[in-house]
Amino acid sequence: MTFPDDYKPRVKEVNEYLMRSLDIVEDERLRAAMAHYPAAGGKRLRPLLATIVAEAVGGKAEAAIPFGVALEMVHNFTLVHDDVMDEDETRRGIATVHAEFGIPEAILAGDALFARAFEIVLISDVDSADVVKLVETLAKAVRILAEGQQLDMDFEHAKSVSSDDYMKMIERKTAVLYSAAAQAGAIVGGGSENQEEAMFEYGRLIGLGFQIWDDVLDLTSDVETFGKPVLNDIRNGKKTLIVVNALEDLKGAERKEFLSVLGKKNATKKELVRARNILDGVGSINHATRVANELVAKAKGQLHVLKESPHKEALKEFADYMVTRKT
Amino acid sequence: MTFPDDYKPRVKEVNEYLMRSLDIVEDERLRAAMAHYPAAGGKRLRPLLATIVAEAVGGKAEAAIPFGVALEMVHNFTLVHDDVMDEDETRRGIATVHAEFGIPEAILAGDALFARAFEIVLISDVDSADVVKLVETLAKAVRILAEGQQLDMDFEHAKSVSSDDYMKMIERKTAVLYSAAAQAGAIVGGGSENQEEAMFEYGRLIGLGFQIWDDVLDLTSDVETFGKPVLNDIRNGKKTLIVVNALEDLKGAERKEFLSVLGKKNATKKELVRARNILDGVGSINHATRVANELVAKAKGQLHVLKESPHKEALKEFADYMVTRKT
Repeated sequence: MTFPDDYKPRVKEVNEYLMRSLDIVEDERLRAAMAHYPAAGGKRLRPLLATIVAEAVGGKAEAAIPFGVALEMVHNFTLVHDDVMDEDETRRGIATVHAEFGIPEAILAGDALFARAFEIVLISDVDSADVVKLVETLAKAVRILAEGQQLDMDFEHAKSVSSDDYMKMIERKTAVLYSAAAQAGAIVGGGSENQEEAMFEYGRLIGLGFQIWDDVLDLTSDVETFGKPVLNDIRNGKKTLIVVNALEDLKGAERKEFLSVLGKKNATKKELVRARNILDGVGSINHATRVANELVAKAKGQLHVLKESPHKEALKEFADYMVTRKT
Repeated sequence: MTFPDDYKPRVKEVNEYLMRSLDIVEDERLRAAMAHYPAAGGKRLRPLLATIVAEAVGGKAEAAIPFGVALEMVHNFTLVHDDVMDEDETRRGIATVHAEFGIPEAILAGDALFARAFEIVLISDVDSADVVKLVETLAKAVRILAEGQQLDMDFEHAKSVSSDDYMKMIERKTAVLYSAAAQAGAIVGGGSENQEEAMFEYGRLIGLGFQIWDDVLDLTSDVETFGKPVLNDIRNGKKTLIVVNALEDLKGAERKEFLSVLGKKNATKKELVRARNILDGVGSINHATRVANELVAKAKGQLHVLKESPHKEALKEFADYMVTRKT
């Protein structure tokens, strides 16, 4: 199977399962707020990862669907809450939940998505001991996610952020759901403990690569291709690996100019492009691209625990996709 | 055992377990925000209920402690988020989490408490099948809680709210954690299915009684005894059973006067007292007290599924306490 093209029917299945899972909510307004992001679509990378790993260790994709859907709910709940915290009014071209429904409703819808995720995990067609492991994986992931969001918020006011700080943050805020997805796939697929550990690590590494590549795309793509505004991280003063790395090297007038634009909410297009060019000139975009690729190469190294199969090949392609995607 | 006096050591144990469970959180600020309400104390009625039911069906109190602590975390997480939604600045004499730490931190701390609750449930010393039942009980409870909070928010703008609407709301927003506590106690204590169902119903009924009695105390107590401001529900325009019942009967000038104070944020003490007296005069406070007592009597009827024991007696006292407590 070729990733992601051959997985379109599976994405459709995940989407249907996801939307159907919200039917249980009685209150129409609450249900609508909960469905706002899930209904807007998405690549469903986390559910796909869980299902492909399940197959790659010798199990069935079906067994990983509930956990995948639960992860997608958790992912969406964190988007809803993060958007409130960041006071963002739009997300990928649509109004954020709180912009559309108000802050109280957005907080509540996030909570309800979170709760529903745990109900959905329990539907997994595996024995009780494995269900317990799945719940543990999910709960731990969300607790760590909260720590990641905390670090991200702390960075906004931090005087200096190191590369290590940044990696620690994205490991918690982004990679954690990929490692959980891959680990859960190994659990429901009946993989060995060794495979479970290797898949966790594979997920963690591609998750890190995913985020760094996302930071690169923010600087090198355009809004039509990327599907969301570009050069936003500079405007928002995000301490990405690219920025952190550049600040280690930048000096004199260029450093001064870059810092004057970083976090300038009303920066002009011209200023943002100039700041991007400074990052490019100092080699930081290339550096980040290299780091992302190295992470993905290391991730693929973890796949040696798997027998050869089309699913293993798909996981190689999955890893590559994380750092080659345009959107 | 006499409730609640004989259970002080158990409350202490719950408190220690609860606070210890937050140690895992790395970020100091996040941990402090999560601990803000738990550290302020509380009666810990939900954990106590779970442990006493566990004993009453023939099991050990210890087995119910993790679930009880998880419920307490969930209860506290909903308080944190509800306070943000309601824009309340104080709770029982201390600053609310968002007043102290800011809204983003409060949202995040709530989420992290929620996630941690599910990790804690998994520590329960019961077999995997029962752990799965406990997770299901907790996840369902939180999803229903969100529906209750939604109804509560809807009521603020609703033209008319019936007694049935009110009962539906408090069943979801308040009773659900008591039914979950009692059900979980039956599960971890090794109770029969019949006992589990009866305990769920017992918890539901005392939870309803608890909330109606809380509404009564808001009107009949004083701040020193109650431990929180009184006559607040009138000021906030809460459609309690007392208010709903009164509005069915009130006519003419009294109705007009009452409605002019209901929801008046800057109402004077005199206006509030006058509104309270109108509710009293029309018999609504007595009516609510009677309803609360009837619910508790019905709850005690559910205890026939239990063998005679000091724990069964404690559950009778527990039920009575819900509608006789002064605080």
